[in-house]
Amino acid sequence: MVNIKLTIEYDGRNYCGWQVQPNGLSVQNVIEDALLSLTGEKIRINGSGRTDSGVHALGQTATFKTLSGIPPESFSKALNHLLPIDISIISSCKAGEDFHARFSANGKHYRYLIYNRESRSPFYDGRAYRVSKRLDIEAMKKASEYFLGTHDFKGFMATGSQVEDTLRSIFELSVKRDKELIELSVKGNGFLYNMVRIIAGTILECGLGKLDPTELKGIIASGKRESAGPTLPAAGLYLVEVYY
Amino acid sequence: MVNIKLTIEYDGRNYCGWQVQPNGLSVQNVIEDALLSLTGEKIRINGSGRTDSGVHALGQTATFKTLSGIPPESFSKALNHLLPIDISIISSCKAGEDFHARFSANGKHYRYLIYNRESRSPFYDGRAYRVSKRLDIEAMKKASEYFLGTHDFKGFMATGSQVEDTLRSIFELSVKRDKELIELSVKGNGFLYNMVRIIAGTILECGLGKLDPTELKGIIASGKRESAGPTLPAAGLYLVEVYY
Repeated sequence: MVNIKLTIEYDGRNYCGWQVQPNGLSVQNVIEDALLSLTGEKIRINGSGRTDSGVHALGQTATFKTLSGIPPESFSKALNHLLPIDISIISSCKAGEDFHARFSANGKHYRYLIYNRESRSPFYDGRAYRVSKRLDIEAMKKASEYFLGTHDFKGFMATGSQVEDTLRSIFELSVKRDKELIELSVKGNGFLYNMVRIIAGTILECGLGKLDPTELKGIIASGKRESAGPTLPAAGLYLVEVYY
Repeated sequence: MVNIKLTIEYDGRNYCGWQVQPNGLSVQNVIEDALLSLTGEKIRINGSGRTDSGVHALGQTATFKTLSGIPPESFSKALNHLLPIDISIISSCKAGEDFHARFSANGKHYRYLIYNRESRSPFYDGRAYRVSKRLDIEAMKKASEYFLGTHDFKGFMATGSQVEDTLRSIFELSVKRDKELIELSVKGNGFLYNMVRIIAGTILECGLGKLDPTELKGIIASGKRESAGPTLPAAGLYLVEVYY
Protein backbone atom coordinates (compact mmCIF):
# COMPACT_ATOMS: atom_id res chain seq x y z
CA MET A 1 0.00 0.00 0.00
CA VAL A 2 1.25 3.44 -0.91
CA ASN A 3 0.08 6.49 1.03
CA ILE A 4 -0.76 9.41 -1.31
CA LYS A 5 -1.28 13.06 -0.39
CA LEU A 6 -3.48 15.28 -2.57
CA THR A 7 -3.66 19.08 -2.54
CA ILE A 8 -7.05 20.17 -3.79
CA GLU A 9 -8.68 23.38 -4.98
CA TYR A 10 -12.45 23.62 -5.26
CA ASP A 11 -15.31 26.03 -5.72
CA GLY A 12 -17.73 24.90 -3.02
CA ARG A 13 -20.90 26.32 -4.53
CA ASN A 14 -22.20 23.10 -6.04
CA TYR A 15 -21.40 20.85 -3.10
CA CYS A 16 -22.86 20.01 0.30
CA GLY A 17 -19.34 20.48 1.65
CA TRP A 18 -16.22 18.35 1.82
CA GLN A 19 -17.54 15.38 3.71
CA VAL A 20 -19.79 12.58 2.44
CA GLN A 21 -23.37 13.25 3.57
CA PRO A 22 -26.50 11.10 3.33
CA ASN A 23 -28.11 13.69 1.06
CA GLY A 24 -26.26 15.83 -1.41
CA LEU A 25 -23.06 15.62 -3.37
CA SER A 26 -19.81 16.22 -1.47
CA VAL A 27 -16.35 17.03 -2.80
CA GLN A 28 -15.07 13.86 -1.13
CA ASN A 29 -17.73 11.82 -2.99
CA VAL A 30 -16.70 13.17 -6.34
CA ILE A 31 -12.99 12.54 -5.76
CA GLU A 32 -13.64 9.02 -4.45
CA ASP A 33 -15.71 8.28 -7.57
CA ALA A 34 -12.88 9.54 -9.76
CA LEU A 35 -10.41 7.33 -7.84
CA LEU A 36 -12.68 4.32 -8.37
CA SER A 37 -12.74 4.97 -12.13
CA LEU A 38 -9.00 5.45 -12.18
CA THR A 39 -7.82 2.57 -10.00
CA GLY A 40 -10.76 0.19 -9.77
CA GLU A 41 -10.35 0.37 -6.00
CA LYS A 42 -13.04 1.56 -3.59
CA ILE A 43 -10.88 4.11 -1.83
CA ARG A 44 -11.87 6.18 1.20
CA ILE A 45 -9.97 9.48 1.34
CA ASN A 46 -9.27 11.41 4.54
CA GLY A 47 -9.49 15.19 4.31
CA SER A 48 -7.64 17.60 6.60
CA GLY A 49 -11.05 18.55 7.93
CA ARG A 50 -14.59 19.26 6.79
CA THR A 51 -15.54 22.35 4.92
CA ASP A 52 -19.21 23.37 5.01
CA SER A 53 -21.56 23.64 2.06
CA GLY A 54 -20.52 26.57 -0.12
CA VAL A 55 -17.06 26.95 1.46
CA HIS A 56 -14.16 26.99 -1.02
CA ALA A 57 -10.63 25.61 -0.88
CA LEU A 58 -7.38 26.66 -2.49
CA GLY A 59 -5.32 24.09 -0.63
CA GLN A 60 -7.42 21.39 1.01
CA THR A 61 -5.40 18.24 1.61
CA ALA A 62 -6.39 14.59 1.71
CA THR A 63 -4.61 11.27 2.07
CA PHE A 64 -5.51 7.78 0.92
CA LYS A 65 -3.87 4.37 0.51
CA THR A 66 -3.77 2.52 -2.77
CA LEU A 67 -2.47 -0.72 -4.22
CA SER A 68 -2.39 0.69 -7.75
CA GLY A 69 0.96 1.12 -9.44
CA ILE A 70 0.17 4.63 -10.68
CA PRO A 71 3.16 6.94 -9.97
CA PRO A 72 2.18 9.21 -7.04
CA GLU A 73 2.84 12.42 -9.03
CA SER A 74 0.56 11.24 -11.84
CA PHE A 75 -2.61 11.12 -9.74
CA SER A 76 -3.22 14.89 -10.10
CA LYS A 77 -3.30 14.93 -13.91
CA ALA A 78 -5.14 11.62 -14.17
CA LEU A 79 -7.81 12.68 -11.67
CA ASN A 80 -8.27 16.11 -13.27
CA HIS A 81 -9.32 14.37 -16.49
CA LEU A 82 -12.13 12.70 -14.56
CA LEU A 83 -13.16 15.56 -12.25
CA PRO A 84 -15.58 18.41 -12.98
CA ILE A 85 -14.10 21.85 -13.59
CA ASP A 86 -14.97 23.10 -10.08
CA ILE A 87 -12.59 20.59 -8.44
CA SER A 88 -8.90 20.53 -9.35
CA ILE A 89 -6.08 18.45 -7.90
CA ILE A 90 -3.15 20.87 -7.69
CA SER A 91 -0.59 18.22 -6.83
CA SER A 92 -0.19 14.66 -5.66
CA CYS A 93 2.79 13.02 -3.99
CA LYS A 94 3.84 10.03 -1.95
CA ALA A 95 3.55 10.57 1.80
CA GLY A 96 5.15 8.72 4.70
CA GLU A 97 3.30 5.62 5.86
CA ASP A 98 1.95 7.28 9.00
CA PHE A 99 1.16 10.64 7.45
CA HIS A 100 -2.55 11.54 7.77
CA ALA A 101 -4.12 14.67 6.27
CA ARG A 102 -6.08 15.37 9.45
CA PHE A 103 -4.06 13.99 12.34
CA SER A 104 -0.68 15.17 11.06
CA ALA A 105 -1.88 18.76 10.51
CA ASN A 106 -0.57 21.36 12.93
CA GLY A 107 -2.23 24.48 11.60
CA LYS A 108 -4.41 26.04 8.95
CA HIS A 109 -4.68 29.18 6.89
CA TYR A 110 -8.12 30.55 6.04
CA ARG A 111 -9.24 33.57 4.02
CA TYR A 112 -12.54 35.40 4.27
CA LEU A 113 -13.49 37.66 1.35
CA ILE A 114 -15.85 40.61 1.69
CA TYR A 115 -17.00 42.51 -1.36
CA ASN A 116 -17.70 46.09 -0.33
CA ARG A 117 -20.01 47.76 -2.83
CA GLU A 118 -23.64 48.43 -3.48
CA SER A 119 -24.23 46.51 -6.70
CA ARG A 120 -23.85 42.75 -6.86
CA SER A 121 -20.90 41.28 -8.72
CA PRO A 122 -20.90 38.74 -11.58
CA PHE A 123 -17.42 37.72 -10.50
CA TYR A 124 -17.78 37.49 -6.71
CA ASP A 125 -21.33 36.27 -6.26
CA GLY A 126 -20.99 32.99 -4.34
CA ARG A 127 -17.29 33.66 -3.86
CA ALA A 128 -17.38 36.60 -1.44
CA TYR A 129 -19.82 38.15 1.01
CA ARG A 130 -21.20 41.45 -0.24
CA VAL A 131 -21.58 44.39 2.13
CA SER A 132 -23.13 47.56 0.68
CA LYS A 133 -22.21 50.02 3.41
CA ARG A 134 -18.71 51.49 3.13
CA LEU A 135 -16.57 49.76 5.75
CA ASP A 136 -14.08 51.38 8.11
CA ILE A 137 -10.99 49.36 7.25
CA GLU A 138 -8.88 50.94 9.99
CA ALA A 139 -11.36 49.82 12.66
CA MET A 140 -11.26 46.31 11.16
CA LYS A 141 -7.47 46.24 11.28
CA LYS A 142 -7.52 47.39 14.88
CA ALA A 143 -10.13 44.75 15.72
CA SER A 144 -8.04 41.97 14.19
CA GLU A 145 -5.20 42.55 16.67
CA TYR A 146 -7.31 41.43 19.62
CA PHE A 147 -7.57 37.90 18.25
CA LEU A 148 -3.82 37.32 18.01
CA GLY A 149 -2.23 34.89 20.43
CA THR A 150 -3.71 32.11 22.53
CA HIS A 151 -7.26 32.56 23.78
CA ASP A 152 -10.21 30.52 24.92
CA PHE A 153 -12.39 30.92 21.81
CA LYS A 154 -15.50 29.40 23.40
CA GLY A 155 -17.60 32.39 22.32
CA PHE A 156 -16.40 32.01 18.74
CA MET A 157 -17.75 28.51 18.19
CA ALA A 158 -21.13 27.48 16.76
CA THR A 159 -23.68 26.96 19.54
CA GLY A 160 -24.13 23.26 20.22
CA SER A 161 -20.55 22.23 19.40
CA GLN A 162 -19.36 19.48 21.69
CA VAL A 163 -15.65 20.39 21.79
CA GLU A 164 -14.30 20.68 25.35
CA ASP A 165 -10.89 22.20 24.78
CA THR A 166 -11.64 25.57 23.22
CA LEU A 167 -8.15 27.04 23.59
CA ARG A 168 -6.69 27.99 20.21
CA SER A 169 -3.73 30.08 19.00
CA ILE A 170 -3.89 32.56 16.14
CA PHE A 171 -0.46 33.33 14.65
CA GLU A 172 -1.52 35.88 12.10
CA LEU A 173 -4.65 37.85 11.28
CA SER A 174 -4.52 40.51 8.60
CA VAL A 175 -7.14 42.73 6.99
CA LYS A 176 -6.38 44.20 3.56
CA ARG A 177 -8.44 46.25 1.14
CA ASP A 178 -7.83 46.16 -2.62
CA LYS A 179 -10.44 48.52 -4.07
CA GLU A 180 -13.81 46.86 -3.41
CA LEU A 181 -12.40 43.60 -2.09
CA ILE A 182 -11.52 43.13 1.58
CA GLU A 183 -9.48 40.08 2.49
CA LEU A 184 -9.21 38.70 6.02
CA SER A 185 -6.37 36.24 6.30
CA VAL A 186 -6.17 34.03 9.42
CA LYS A 187 -3.51 31.52 10.38
CA GLY A 188 -3.75 29.40 13.49
CA ASN A 189 -2.98 26.04 15.08
CA GLY A 190 -6.60 24.96 14.83
CA PHE A 191 -10.10 26.35 14.49
CA LEU A 192 -13.38 25.58 16.24
CA TYR A 193 -16.57 25.00 14.26
CA ASN A 194 -17.51 28.26 12.47
CA MET A 195 -14.70 30.09 14.29
CA VAL A 196 -13.36 31.92 11.21
CA ARG A 197 -16.83 32.97 10.09
CA ILE A 198 -17.68 34.29 13.57
CA ILE A 199 -14.34 36.15 13.86
CA ALA A 200 -15.02 37.66 10.41
CA GLY A 201 -18.53 38.64 11.54
CA THR A 202 -17.17 40.30 14.66
CA ILE A 203 -14.50 42.21 12.73
CA LEU A 204 -17.21 43.24 10.25
CA GLU A 205 -19.31 44.69 13.10
CA CYS A 206 -16.32 46.92 13.89
CA GLY A 207 -16.09 47.94 10.23
CA LEU A 208 -19.78 48.85 10.30
CA GLY A 209 -19.33 50.92 13.47
CA LYS A 210 -21.66 48.65 15.46
CA LEU A 211 -18.85 47.55 17.75
CA ASP A 212 -15.79 49.40 18.98
CA PRO A 213 -12.56 47.38 18.68
CA THR A 214 -11.76 48.13 22.33
CA GLU A 215 -14.80 46.05 23.34
CA LEU A 216 -13.25 42.92 21.84
CA LYS A 217 -11.03 42.06 24.80
CA GLY A 218 -14.12 41.76 26.98
CA ILE A 219 -16.11 39.92 24.31
CA ILE A 220 -13.42 37.28 23.87
CA ALA A 221 -12.97 36.91 27.64
CA SER A 222 -16.73 36.52 28.18
CA GLY A 223 -16.78 33.20 26.28
CA LYS A 224 -20.36 33.96 25.26
CA ARG A 225 -21.44 33.24 21.70
CA GLU A 226 -24.09 36.00 21.86
CA SER A 227 -21.48 38.66 22.64
CA ALA A 228 -19.56 37.98 19.43
CA GLY A 229 -20.69 39.01 15.94
CA PRO A 230 -22.76 36.99 13.48
CA THR A 231 -21.55 33.92 11.57
CA LEU A 232 -20.88 35.25 8.08
CA PRO A 233 -22.05 33.21 5.07
CA ALA A 234 -20.05 30.24 3.75
CA ALA A 235 -19.57 31.86 0.32
CA GLY A 236 -16.75 34.13 1.55
CA LEU A 237 -14.67 31.41 3.22
CA TYR A 238 -11.60 29.74 1.68
CA LEU A 239 -9.34 27.08 3.18
CA VAL A 240 -6.03 28.35 1.80
CA GLU A 241 -3.44 25.97 3.23
CA VAL A 242 -2.97 23.20 5.74
CA TYR A 243 0.31 23.23 7.65
CA TYR A 244 2.32 20.10 8.48
CA MET B 1 -36.25 62.37 -23.58
CA VAL B 2 -33.56 61.86 -20.97
CA ASN B 3 -30.15 60.48 -21.95
CA ILE B 4 -28.94 57.83 -19.47
CA LYS B 5 -25.45 56.40 -19.09
CA LEU B 6 -24.96 52.91 -17.64
CA THR B 7 -21.73 51.39 -16.33
CA ILE B 8 -21.92 47.61 -16.62
CA GLU B 9 -20.01 44.63 -15.31
CA TYR B 10 -20.49 41.20 -16.89
CA ASP B 11 -19.08 37.73 -17.05
CA GLY B 12 -19.07 37.07 -20.79
CA ARG B 13 -19.05 33.28 -20.66
CA ASN B 14 -22.74 32.78 -21.31
CA TYR B 15 -23.09 35.38 -24.07
CA CYS B 16 -22.31 35.66 -27.77
CA GLY B 17 -20.73 39.02 -26.90
CA TRP B 18 -22.00 42.52 -26.26
CA GLN B 19 -23.78 43.18 -29.51
CA VAL B 20 -27.13 41.81 -30.68
CA GLN B 21 -26.53 38.91 -33.08
CA PRO B 22 -28.95 36.93 -35.26
CA ASN B 23 -28.10 33.76 -33.32
CA GLY B 24 -27.22 33.67 -29.66
CA LEU B 25 -27.92 35.75 -26.62
CA SER B 26 -25.98 39.01 -26.27
CA VAL B 27 -25.45 41.18 -23.20
CA GLN B 28 -27.13 44.05 -25.06
CA ASN B 29 -30.20 41.82 -25.69
CA VAL B 30 -30.56 40.97 -22.04
CA ILE B 31 -30.27 44.59 -20.89
CA GLU B 32 -32.73 45.79 -23.55
CA ASP B 33 -35.22 43.13 -22.42
CA ALA B 34 -34.84 44.29 -18.83
CA LEU B 35 -35.39 47.91 -19.92
CA LEU B 36 -38.56 46.87 -21.76
CA SER B 37 -39.89 45.18 -18.61
CA LEU B 38 -38.96 48.19 -16.51
CA THR B 39 -40.17 51.05 -18.71
CA GLY B 40 -42.54 49.50 -21.24
CA GLU B 41 -40.41 51.18 -23.92
CA LYS B 42 -38.61 49.33 -26.69
CA ILE B 43 -35.21 50.90 -26.06
CA ARG B 44 -32.09 50.44 -28.16
CA ILE B 45 -28.91 50.91 -26.11
CA ASN B 46 -25.55 51.97 -27.54
CA GLY B 47 -22.48 50.35 -26.04
CA SER B 48 -18.99 51.90 -26.02
CA GLY B 49 -18.03 49.12 -28.40
CA ARG B 50 -18.50 45.41 -29.02
CA THR B 51 -16.92 42.79 -26.87
CA ASP B 52 -16.56 39.32 -28.39
CA SER B 53 -18.14 36.13 -27.15
CA GLY B 54 -16.57 35.14 -23.84
CA VAL B 55 -14.97 38.55 -23.19
CA HIS B 56 -15.73 40.09 -19.80
CA ALA B 57 -16.33 43.66 -18.66
CA LEU B 58 -15.75 45.46 -15.39
CA GLY B 59 -16.73 48.86 -16.78
CA GLN B 60 -18.52 48.62 -20.12
CA THR B 61 -20.63 51.73 -20.76
CA ALA B 62 -23.84 52.25 -22.70
CA THR B 63 -26.23 55.11 -23.33
CA PHE B 64 -29.92 55.18 -24.18
CA LYS B 65 -32.79 57.66 -24.30
CA THR B 66 -36.00 57.20 -22.37
CA LEU B 67 -39.33 58.98 -21.79
CA SER B 68 -39.84 57.21 -18.47
CA GLY B 69 -39.86 59.29 -15.30
CA ILE B 70 -37.57 56.89 -13.42
CA PRO B 71 -34.82 58.86 -11.64
CA PRO B 72 -31.56 58.29 -13.58
CA GLU B 73 -29.70 56.95 -10.51
CA SER B 74 -32.45 54.39 -9.87
CA PHE B 75 -31.98 52.49 -13.13
CA SER B 76 -29.03 50.49 -11.76
CA LYS B 77 -30.90 49.01 -8.79
CA ALA B 78 -34.13 48.51 -10.74
CA LEU B 79 -32.35 46.78 -13.62
CA ASN B 80 -30.30 44.55 -11.32
CA HIS B 81 -33.55 43.10 -9.97
CA LEU B 82 -34.42 42.00 -13.52
CA LEU B 83 -30.98 40.94 -14.76
CA PRO B 84 -29.26 37.55 -14.33
CA ILE B 85 -26.39 37.34 -11.84
CA ASP B 86 -23.71 37.47 -14.55
CA ILE B 87 -24.68 41.00 -15.58
CA SER B 88 -24.65 43.85 -13.05
CA ILE B 89 -25.30 47.55 -13.57
CA ILE B 90 -22.71 49.25 -11.36
CA SER B 91 -24.15 52.73 -11.76
CA SER B 92 -26.55 54.80 -13.81
CA CYS B 93 -26.68 58.56 -14.25
CA LYS B 94 -28.07 61.32 -16.42
CA ALA B 95 -25.76 62.25 -19.32
CA GLY B 96 -25.66 65.37 -21.48
CA GLU B 97 -28.02 65.35 -24.46
CA ASP B 98 -25.21 64.73 -26.99
CA PHE B 99 -23.24 62.25 -24.91
CA HIS B 100 -22.86 58.89 -26.68
CA ALA B 101 -21.16 55.86 -25.10
CA ARG B 102 -19.26 55.09 -28.30
CA PHE B 103 -18.69 58.40 -30.08
CA SER B 104 -17.82 60.38 -26.95
CA ALA B 105 -15.22 57.85 -25.78
CA ASN B 106 -11.59 58.92 -26.05
CA GLY B 107 -9.84 55.88 -24.67
CA LYS B 108 -10.16 52.46 -23.07
CA HIS B 109 -8.53 50.33 -20.45
CA TYR B 110 -8.30 46.57 -20.98
CA ARG B 111 -6.89 43.78 -18.83
CA TYR B 112 -5.68 40.38 -19.99
CA LEU B 113 -5.35 37.65 -17.34
CA ILE B 114 -3.01 34.70 -17.67
CA TYR B 115 -3.07 31.90 -15.15
CA ASN B 116 0.39 30.37 -14.98
CA ARG B 117 0.23 26.87 -13.55
CA GLU B 118 -0.05 23.29 -14.61
CA SER B 119 -3.38 22.29 -13.11
CA ARG B 120 -6.61 23.92 -14.20
CA SER B 121 -8.37 26.27 -11.80
CA PRO B 122 -11.97 26.13 -10.54
CA PHE B 123 -11.80 29.90 -10.00
CA TYR B 124 -10.15 31.06 -13.23
CA ASP B 125 -11.49 28.64 -15.81
CA GLY B 126 -13.27 30.83 -18.39
CA ARG B 127 -11.92 33.93 -16.65
CA ALA B 128 -8.23 33.70 -17.49
CA TYR B 129 -6.02 31.94 -20.03
CA ARG B 130 -4.04 29.12 -18.52
CA VAL B 131 -0.39 28.59 -19.47
CA SER B 132 1.36 25.58 -17.93
CA LYS B 133 4.96 26.49 -18.67
CA ARG B 134 6.56 28.83 -16.16
CA LEU B 135 6.73 32.28 -17.79
CA ASP B 136 9.66 34.68 -17.77
CA ILE B 137 7.96 37.74 -16.32
CA GLU B 138 10.99 39.99 -16.84
CA ALA B 139 10.98 39.26 -20.58
CA MET B 140 7.27 40.05 -20.67
CA LYS B 141 7.84 43.38 -18.89
CA LYS B 142 10.59 44.26 -21.30
CA ALA B 143 8.37 43.30 -24.25
CA SER B 144 5.55 45.52 -23.04
CA GLU B 145 7.71 48.65 -23.36
CA TYR B 146 7.91 48.34 -27.15
CA PHE B 147 4.17 48.91 -27.52
CA LEU B 148 4.12 52.24 -25.66
CA GLY B 149 3.47 55.38 -27.68
CA THR B 150 1.93 55.91 -31.10
CA HIS B 151 2.43 53.16 -33.69
CA ASP B 152 0.82 51.79 -36.81
CA PHE B 153 -0.71 48.65 -35.31
CA LYS B 154 -1.67 47.12 -38.66
CA GLY B 155 0.04 43.84 -37.76
CA PHE B 156 -1.90 43.68 -34.50
CA MET B 157 -5.35 43.59 -36.05
CA ALA B 158 -7.45 40.55 -36.99
CA THR B 159 -6.87 39.58 -40.62
CA GLY B 160 -9.73 40.82 -42.76
CA SER B 161 -10.52 43.93 -40.70
CA GLN B 162 -11.59 46.81 -42.93
CA VAL B 163 -10.19 49.68 -40.83
CA GLU B 164 -7.95 52.04 -42.85
CA ASP B 165 -6.45 54.20 -40.14
CA THR B 166 -4.46 51.76 -38.03
CA LEU B 167 -2.50 54.34 -36.04
CA ARG B 168 -3.18 54.00 -32.31
CA SER B 169 -1.58 55.30 -29.10
CA ILE B 170 -0.90 53.21 -26.02
CA PHE B 171 -0.49 55.30 -22.86
CA GLU B 172 0.25 52.52 -20.43
CA LEU B 173 1.05 48.83 -20.62
CA SER B 174 2.02 46.98 -17.47
CA VAL B 175 2.71 43.33 -16.68
CA LYS B 176 2.36 42.18 -13.08
CA ARG B 177 2.61 38.79 -11.44
CA ASP B 178 0.75 37.94 -8.24
CA LYS B 179 1.65 34.32 -7.51
CA GLU B 180 0.09 32.28 -10.33
CA LEU B 181 -1.83 35.17 -11.88
CA ILE B 182 -0.28 37.45 -14.50
CA GLU B 183 -2.14 40.63 -15.32
CA LEU B 184 -1.50 42.67 -18.46
CA SER B 185 -3.05 46.11 -18.19
CA VAL B 186 -3.34 48.24 -21.36
CA LYS B 187 -4.61 51.79 -21.72
CA GLY B 188 -4.91 53.51 -25.08
CA ASN B 189 -6.87 55.96 -27.18
CA GLY B 190 -8.46 53.15 -29.19
CA PHE B 191 -7.95 49.54 -30.16
CA LEU B 192 -8.21 47.67 -33.45
CA TYR B 193 -10.15 44.42 -33.69
CA ASN B 194 -8.39 41.76 -31.53
CA MET B 195 -5.51 44.17 -30.89
CA VAL B 196 -5.29 43.52 -27.13
CA ARG B 197 -5.46 39.75 -27.58
CA ILE B 198 -2.71 39.85 -30.24
CA ILE B 199 -0.51 42.13 -28.10
CA ALA B 200 -1.04 39.71 -25.19
CA GLY B 201 -0.16 36.78 -27.47
CA THR B 202 3.02 38.50 -28.59
CA ILE B 203 4.09 39.36 -25.04
CA LEU B 204 3.32 35.76 -24.06
CA GLU B 205 5.68 34.49 -26.80
CA CYS B 206 8.42 36.52 -25.09
CA GLY B 207 7.47 35.00 -21.72
CA LEU B 208 7.76 31.54 -23.28
CA GLY B 209 11.17 32.36 -24.76
CA LYS B 210 9.89 31.92 -28.33
CA LEU B 211 10.51 35.59 -29.14
CA ASP B 212 13.16 37.97 -27.89
CA PRO B 213 11.74 41.34 -26.79
CA THR B 214 14.33 43.12 -28.95
CA GLU B 215 12.63 41.65 -32.04
CA LEU B 216 9.43 43.56 -31.28
CA LYS B 217 10.51 46.86 -32.82
CA GLY B 218 10.87 45.15 -36.20
CA ILE B 219 7.68 43.11 -35.77
CA ILE B 220 5.60 46.21 -35.06
CA ALA B 221 7.25 48.13 -37.94
CA SER B 222 6.62 45.25 -40.38
CA GLY B 223 2.85 45.72 -40.15
CA LYS B 224 2.44 42.00 -40.85
CA ARG B 225 -0.12 40.01 -38.87
CA GLU B 226 1.93 36.81 -39.27
CA SER B 227 4.98 38.36 -37.61
CA ALA B 228 3.07 39.07 -34.38
CA GLY B 229 2.05 36.44 -31.83
CA PRO B 230 -1.21 34.47 -31.69
CA THR B 231 -4.60 35.92 -30.75
CA LEU B 232 -5.12 34.72 -27.17
CA PRO B 233 -8.54 33.34 -26.16
CA ALA B 234 -11.43 35.64 -25.25
CA ALA B 235 -11.71 34.21 -21.72
CA GLY B 236 -8.74 36.24 -20.42
CA LEU B 237 -9.92 39.62 -21.71
CA TYR B 238 -11.67 42.28 -19.61
CA LEU B 239 -12.86 45.74 -20.65
CA VAL B 240 -11.98 47.58 -17.45
CA GLU B 241 -12.93 51.20 -18.15
CA VAL B 242 -13.97 53.54 -20.94
CA TYR B 243 -12.50 57.05 -20.78
CA TYR B 244 -14.48 60.20 -21.64
